Amino acid sequence: MTFALDPRLAADTLAIGDLALSRVLLMNDRRYPWLVLVPRREASREIVDLDAQERATLIEEIAASSRFVQSLPGVDKINVGALGNLVAQLHVHVVGRAVGDPAWPGPVWGRGAARRYAPERAAVLIAQARAALVTP
Amino acid sequence: MTFALDPRLAADTLAIGDLALSRVLLMNDRRYPWLVLVPRREASREIVDLDAQERATLIEEIAASSRFVQSLPGVDKINVGALGNLVAQLHVHVVGRAVGDPAWPGPVWGRGAARRYAPERAAVLIAQARAALVTP
Repeated sequence: MTFALDPRLAADTLAIGDLALSRVLLMNDRRYPWLVLVPRREASREIVDLDAQERATLIEEIAASSRFVQSLPGVDKINVGALGNLVAQLHVHVVGRAVGDPAWPGPVWGRGAARRYAPERAAVLIAQARAALVTP
Repeated sequence: MTFALDPRLAADTLAIGDLALSRVLLMNDRRYPWLVLVPRREASREIVDLDAQERATLIEEIAASSRFVQSLPGVDKINVGALGNLVAQLHVHVVGRAVGDPAWPGPVWGRGAARRYAPERAAVLIAQARAALVTP
């Protein structure tokens, strides 16, 4: 089955790898440690559009992504969100929040322009995420 | 096992009933058709704090809640979110969004004071939600 990542998601993120169901992306915004899971199912817009087996896989991929984000320094809380008001392709945000971060205690979505990672910092994070999620 | 709903969640919502894992609440804000699922597990703050079986149940309760919200008039999109930056007790929002609603296309959280339902309108919605979710 072909899968094409939404161009806006592609522009805002860096690829980490593929899990059983989802492509895992790193949001290219160093304000927050932030993964995005995109189930490789072109026709899905809502979680409820997945079948029950896919949903069971998705929530385990959310859990694994949460554990990885929790392992990063300074993370006090995880925010999980599937909104899709701007990008129709189903995607789930797993965001590490710190008390006092730029959006705290509000949500991160729609809070101004992303601050891009330096390439070497992004490479380190991507390697850590791959080791934790993609190749365990 | 005892379960006590967080007082802030209790103040902002109206009770619908208990599913296998979660208490289902109606957010008392008529700007958006909005359910809240609260797993009856006192110690859980994050989705990843649930065990795998509970997570599998939770995502099916999210799916069922999504279907109910989708059945309401004027709902164009579902937003699912587990944030918990203000209320530590694990809870999952399932929100019906309409293109052009007061927060569109941004998230609903932190967008001003709720507009309470008239009691008779809340009673109708609660009865519909109970019929769809709690007693099928």
